Amino acid sequence: MNREETQNGDSFKVSSSLGERQIIEIIRDHLDIMPNMPVPFGDDVSAINIGEGKLLVLKTDMLVGKTDVPPSMSLWQAARKAVVMTVSDFASKGAKPQVGLISLGLPKNTNEGDIEEIAEGLNEGAREYNTYLVGGDTNEASDLIIAVSLVGIADGPPLMLRNGAKAGDIVAVTGSFGQTTAGLRILLEDLEVTQDLRDVLVRSVFVPRAKLDEGIALRNSKAATASIDSSDGLAWSLHEIAEKSNVGFFIDKLPISDEVKRVAQLNRVDAVELALYGGEEYELVVTVNPKLWVKAVKAVEAAGGSLFPIGKATKNNRLELSVDYGKREIEKRGWEHFKSN
Amino acid sequence: MNREETQNGDSFKVSSSLGERQIIEIIRDHLDIMPNMPVPFGDDVSAINIGEGKLLVLKTDMLVGKTDVPPSMSLWQAARKAVVMTVSDFASKGAKPQVGLISLGLPKNTNEGDIEEIAEGLNEGAREYNTYLVGGDTNEASDLIIAVSLVGIADGPPLMLRNGAKAGDIVAVTGSFGQTTAGLRILLEDLEVTQDLRDVLVRSVFVPRAKLDEGIALRNSKAATASIDSSDGLAWSLHEIAEKSNVGFFIDKLPISDEVKRVAQLNRVDAVELALYGGEEYELVVTVNPKLWVKAVKAVEAAGGSLFPIGKATKNNRLELSVDYGKREIEKRGWEHFKSN
Repeated sequence: MNREETQNGDSFKVSSSLGERQIIEIIRDHLDIMPNMPVPFGDDVSAINIGEGKLLVLKTDMLVGKTDVPPSMSLWQAARKAVVMTVSDFASKGAKPQVGLISLGLPKNTNEGDIEEIAEGLNEGAREYNTYLVGGDTNEASDLIIAVSLVGIADGPPLMLRNGAKAGDIVAVTGSFGQTTAGLRILLEDLEVTQDLRDVLVRSVFVPRAKLDEGIALRNSKAATASIDSSDGLAWSLHEIAEKSNVGFFIDKLPISDEVKRVAQLNRVDAVELALYGGEEYELVVTVNPKLWVKAVKAVEAAGGSLFPIGKATKNNRLELSVDYGKREIEKRGWEHFKSN
Repeated sequence: MNREETQNGDSFKVSSSLGERQIIEIIRDHLDIMPNMPVPFGDDVSAINIGEGKLLVLKTDMLVGKTDVPPSMSLWQAARKAVVMTVSDFASKGAKPQVGLISLGLPKNTNEGDIEEIAEGLNEGAREYNTYLVGGDTNEASDLIIAVSLVGIADGPPLMLRNGAKAGDIVAVTGSFGQTTAGLRILLEDLEVTQDLRDVLVRSVFVPRAKLDEGIALRNSKAATASIDSSDGLAWSLHEIAEKSNVGFFIDKLPISDEVKRVAQLNRVDAVELALYGGEEYELVVTVNPKLWVKAVKAVEAAGGSLFPIGKATKNNRLELSVDYGKREIEKRGWEHFKSN
């Protein structure tokens, strides 16, 4: 849920002077950093060594009603999504969350039915990924706040970090892009759509899925060199791996679903824009050692998923997308929280 | 930070129709409960078995600016306290937190200096207890929200739970009571005080200390049969142990500090009321096997603390305080969040 770049030409910007990533940097600069952290600060999860080759893996993610929940999303959906988006960070490292804690801020007018809906959504999000919620805290707050903290113990192969990509690696993703961005724009800007398009695209916003089995399979395959989820958009994710791994990317097969292409045509918006600069999308973006490509594909397919090659990691630090007339720069920006007051 | 009883005669009540404990019960009723949890739901921390006799111990606690931070408390103090109150839950079980995550909701007008102050307070709270903050999330919110999640691995003797007290056990505490309640009332109601009294009592609110070393020493001594912290007030803590352990308590030595007695006299308020029905106080309230009493005291003293016997656990389920003219019932109530809008 961390995006601080403003979205190009759109009206849903966070207007605070300090962006989220700036805030996180200021905080980090004032913290004593734990020695020998097996996962660098700023990756999708945190971890510590707990001996015998095991890692304690942990992550917190915070959903705020007014900036993260579109008007027509139900409390059940919002609560489930708060868990799923945190699971997705574990998915991207190939680690299994085991238990979770919830910190819940509830506006004063919250009634018993609302709380039941939130509880059921939280439970659903956890149980779908074989995780249990084991505790929490609640407090009155002006906004709906759902902070989810997940914890798991990992052993076996190293976690897939953001910093391991090498020039020549195949870049791959676990699904197509643009649905949630199109869905959000349908909800927030009344993009023109047919009912069937609306159903598919809005559902991608309301009932997202984390690619946990795929992530675990990839880690066990030892074929992936770097991994991140696409919660901040595909472009953002590629930039993150590029910066942390010191590589560039040449993307020549951008997977855009038919629904996104259709809504783009209908509204004369750029489908590539929707696919690259979206967010709230929980696919995995990974780099794979080309010698182990088949192994990676088989592992993900055995886990019930798919792995689509979309390009290559390059030696130069440019991020480029192949288009009909040549190349187009992939910018470092993504979808912003959609409302700030 | 969970109190849902209204405070007797005071004006700082949470007015929402559902209390926090009711909300937690509704949520729990809608969660799949993890099998074989080594710590029952509703104790100070959660835990799961991770093999080889080890427990993963975890806890989240949420501080909300408008209900938990008195007007004159600094952001540094609020942030530090958010960590300390979570450490206190670990202290009460005798478990050591190792790492923490922060979910931070920041109002739009938060500036860089504010964030630095918050970060330094968080770090101070963690480092005082030899814990590291290793990750977090931040988001714009209407209130200041600081949700702290701490995690640690525990091996060795069983955690001290709320449910192990036996009739005949000595009830003991790690310090005196009433300071924070007096301090809060000085801040919120302008109780009459001298400057030296004010300094001591307000400091207890602004810079609380968790009794982590004492808790760990007690657990290692294997002398304590039950334990809880007093964050919801001494009376509340005694009721919790009594209910979970199916005992009663007869309290004959209520430890009230001189400062609290003096402020009570000065303002004609009941010092016993301040000591029993307070909150935001982070002493440990434990029951000790009388045969192991000396061992418990020595353990706590070796850890740099003190253990004061205040009464006995009884077979009947009454909670009574010995007073000059006989007995007085200890009611199940505590200090409420001090402001709700």
